Amino acid sequence: MIDYMFKPIGIIRTPHVETSQTPIQPVFAKGIPGTVEVFPEYVDGLMDLDKFSHLYLLYYFNRAKETKLKVKPYLEDELHGIFATRAPHRPNKIGISVVKLLKIEKNILHIEDVDILNGTPLLDIKPYIARFDTRDEVRSGWQDEIQDDTADVRGKKDYKE
Amino acid sequence: MIDYMFKPIGIIRTPHVETSQTPIQPVFAKGIPGTVEVFPEYVDGLMDLDKFSHLYLLYYFNRAKETKLKVKPYLEDELHGIFATRAPHRPNKIGISVVKLLKIEKNILHIEDVDILNGTPLLDIKPYIARFDTRDEVRSGWQDEIQDDTADVRGKKDYKE
Repeated sequence: MIDYMFKPIGIIRTPHVETSQTPIQPVFAKGIPGTVEVFPEYVDGLMDLDKFSHLYLLYYFNRAKETKLKVKPYLEDELHGIFATRAPHRPNKIGISVVKLLKIEKNILHIEDVDILNGTPLLDIKPYIARFDTRDEVRSGWQDEIQDDTADVRGKKDYKE
Repeated sequence: MIDYMFKPIGIIRTPHVETSQTPIQPVFAKGIPGTVEVFPEYVDGLMDLDKFSHLYLLYYFNRAKETKLKVKPYLEDELHGIFATRAPHRPNKIGISVVKLLKIEKNILHIEDVDILNGTPLLDIKPYIARFDTRDEVRSGWQDEIQDDTADVRGKKDYKE
């Protein structure tokens, strides 16, 4: 079975240096700022991106060393298959976050709602497009059992402003 | 700069064999069925996934040989930066699609709304979670200029049932 080689196209810089203090998703990281440095050779790829309010960042979970097929996610103490969670210990350690885009200065993106560890290697940027990416009548399995206030407390982990 | 190795964890099977007849996004592929074969060694990772109605599939654009930093997307005849589009010719050729999950039989996922070419290598599966993945007040740049009916015609490309 062939492998695929991916290379970092930038670096994500954030206030989060400890996993234990990093919110698990952008919705639990409201207002937390960060920047994305896109390496200069890719700057032409950013043309017209500044007109989008939200982006998907795809990145490499470089601190997740192990692969686990069953995990207890942060929001719950029950085991689930890794593909039924967003936990980092996946066979291919690709993370996705939907963040707010504030502005772009040359090759630097200023972003908000950042749940990503400082120094995380960037793999791709895609525009979040309402027409493509919103779904109605979504059932979210074990996630639907978790109350919003519980999710909010557990989802922020030990983040301190 | 180090590279990262990713390996396929499965294969996506769909009715789409020609790029020119493959819808560009799941929203233009309503009802089109497909299956995902997850390789048996990863089947434990699927536990509890069957309770989710929608999934992100992350996959490798294995037919996109070139990298282009500016592209004309299918919906429009204007050039945009690759990161302001969802086109496949990206520096790291990772695609994402939000598809409907119908059922899981052992290591086979039956899915719908499939915009992916037959034989595409699967990299990851993540649950679509309403709490994490929907955004209000989204501005979608050049996409917002395109009328829904134009998007629908161009987004389906030459797909024939």
